[in-house]
Amino acid sequence: MEQSNFLELALRWKKIQAAIVANAADACLISTNVNILYAAGRILNGFVYIPAQGKPWFFIRRPVGVEGENVHYIRKPEQISEILQANGIALPEVLMMEGDEISYGEWLRYEAIFAPKKTINCTTILRVVRSVKTDFELAQLKESARLQTASYKEIPSLYKQGMTDHEFTVEIERSMRLHGCLGMFRIFGSSMEAFMGSVLAGENADSPSAYDFALGGLGLHPSLPIGHNDTQLEKGMSVMVDMGGNFNGYMSDQTRTFSIGKLTDKAYKAHQVSIEIQQRLSELTVPGAVCEELYQQSLDIAAKNGLSDCFMGMSQQAKFVGHGVGLVVNELPVLCDRNKTLIEPNMAIALEPKFIIKGVGAVGTENTYIVRQNGLEKITSAPEEIIEL
Amino acid sequence: MEQSNFLELALRWKKIQAAIVANAADACLISTNVNILYAAGRILNGFVYIPAQGKPWFFIRRPVGVEGENVHYIRKPEQISEILQANGIALPEVLMMEGDEISYGEWLRYEAIFAPKKTINCTTILRVVRSVKTDFELAQLKESARLQTASYKEIPSLYKQGMTDHEFTVEIERSMRLHGCLGMFRIFGSSMEAFMGSVLAGENADSPSAYDFALGGLGLHPSLPIGHNDTQLEKGMSVMVDMGGNFNGYMSDQTRTFSIGKLTDKAYKAHQVSIEIQQRLSELTVPGAVCEELYQQSLDIAAKNGLSDCFMGMSQQAKFVGHGVGLVVNELPVLCDRNKTLIEPNMAIALEPKFIIKGVGAVGTENTYIVRQNGLEKITSAPEEIIEL
Repeated sequence: MEQSNFLELALRWKKIQAAIVANAADACLISTNVNILYAAGRILNGFVYIPAQGKPWFFIRRPVGVEGENVHYIRKPEQISEILQANGIALPEVLMMEGDEISYGEWLRYEAIFAPKKTINCTTILRVVRSVKTDFELAQLKESARLQTASYKEIPSLYKQGMTDHEFTVEIERSMRLHGCLGMFRIFGSSMEAFMGSVLAGENADSPSAYDFALGGLGLHPSLPIGHNDTQLEKGMSVMVDMGGNFNGYMSDQTRTFSIGKLTDKAYKAHQVSIEIQQRLSELTVPGAVCEELYQQSLDIAAKNGLSDCFMGMSQQAKFVGHGVGLVVNELPVLCDRNKTLIEPNMAIALEPKFIIKGVGAVGTENTYIVRQNGLEKITSAPEEIIEL
Repeated sequence: MEQSNFLELALRWKKIQAAIVANAADACLISTNVNILYAAGRILNGFVYIPAQGKPWFFIRRPVGVEGENVHYIRKPEQISEILQANGIALPEVLMMEGDEISYGEWLRYEAIFAPKKTINCTTILRVVRSVKTDFELAQLKESARLQTASYKEIPSLYKQGMTDHEFTVEIERSMRLHGCLGMFRIFGSSMEAFMGSVLAGENADSPSAYDFALGGLGLHPSLPIGHNDTQLEKGMSVMVDMGGNFNGYMSDQTRTFSIGKLTDKAYKAHQVSIEIQQRLSELTVPGAVCEELYQQSLDIAAKNGLSDCFMGMSQQAKFVGHGVGLVVNELPVLCDRNKTLIEPNMAIALEPKFIIKGVGAVGTENTYIVRQNGLEKITSAPEEIIEL
């Protein structure tokens, strides 16, 4: 595979192999885009086969022209077992496959190819592996955050009086793209989808969505019920911008709130509470902290400020305050109720305490952080106050 | 569900129920976004349960506030069987589920809920149902095509000398969005993905891609190897624009070729052959025509013109010339080798004979058509000649 990334990829293979060994498996068959990107450093149509020991094998359908150790071209997955055996590699007795991501049909087909004594669904196992980032990954994430921030700083200059939320969104998208955003919004979970992100103006911010994002929005059409809905931007409205910051495969997550004219006192106060929650969680989110306790802290601060009923939505409230970020926008861990996961160093986490204010819209911020020994290091740095457009 | 669409939805339920009966099944459990959109007229987080006879049931997790006959809110899928039984509905003995789309884990979970005697993978069955459109769907597709065409007509005015393909692409995306494009590029197949579409300038058009599109392109980053790659637009290059025309959930597919200055004679000739292939296939694609024979016709015309080696790619050749379109960009049928599917009235099909010309780039066009009794009705109508920018 790509020589320049060899040391980085070797590090990731080692992490996956540790998980294979920890689960008493012999190998892991990777076939979904996000995990292929993780294990091969690029998108391939094919498979990465990682044995518990030794080097990974790459079985590629497309594109032509990939070279490297253990790289083999195949037309169909049935050739994988033939090639492994022809190379003196025993087929796995215990095989890990991505059971929450590959289809039922794919699982059966791959199972028939390897005929293992036992299979293990490794979707969550690989998500846990990916939740702790390498230094290279953190640098990528910081670069995405830097470029996203540069684009966000342009947002006030993109607004023109009389715009709809759609027209404003299109200019923000253009700015993001001109800064190099790849646009692609990768997300875990088959029922989740979004275009580049969401912009929520006024009361549309409280429209409940079919998707499990922090907030919803009606969207432009019932076929994509998320984000802006052609609202005319008018005085007294907040405009919350939450675009996916994918500039290199790694997604920085950052939300900022703008206003048309002035907002109500309650809106400014709630916005300040969002910042307070992030500051408090920045101190508390140290290695060993428990996800559900961090979530509870955010609920407590919202409650103390009399904002429980509008925290993370009003007509429909999201039941989390933060989530991992990386190759997908919703990596592990999730800061939510009943999640006893312990925070680890070098996790990348987005915190997004948001509030809905009646007659105003959404307020609050979201930042992406890296878990360090003494708390969170913030890597998203657009101004956090509500900027009047 | 939505009252205004009731007659349209009832038509779709009838089509699905005919497929349930034809497969000797008792019910179909729909849980993926595209099929939910088809069966409910909107995206829901939840399930549409369609019995062989009678009205469908809607089991919804999100959003709050959906009302209608047989609408029930659930927290977890296990409640579905409880609710059905509480309403005197027998659980299915033969159950259809989307086996090429839902994950292995989901399949096992749903199977345990219903404990049917037999399960049937209905992914292809539902794709076949969706391949023949209702009048409403065709009207939606025509509307998407109309708006996409309006946007495409602006493309020449968006070009400025000195642009990169990325800068040009961003302006095209902006135009599409301002015309109301939802952006979302829905596609069947877990390894397929794209942002809004692709723009291919010069030799990048022949960069082989990991994805199974007609052509590839290196893309901006190995994490999304498709489309433009920051090529400086220069004299003698072709620029092929193939953006997904999703304005209402239904995707019109249209490709047009532009040039920086003049191209070589061979490029213009090959472009004309692309138009010729479409004209010939427009006559031949009548109800009862066979997909593989239509594909063979395109190969024959390419061969007759000495263009076999650069048809549908050069370094990596795609093995189809057309495909259905609808809620996803790659519906059935596929016009490819060994596909004996018979063409049916009211299928919607995109034909995209494309050529790679060395030193120039990609040429050719793509249009979306509706199958009528006497051949194809073209619904994409931007000018087809190579327009010099």
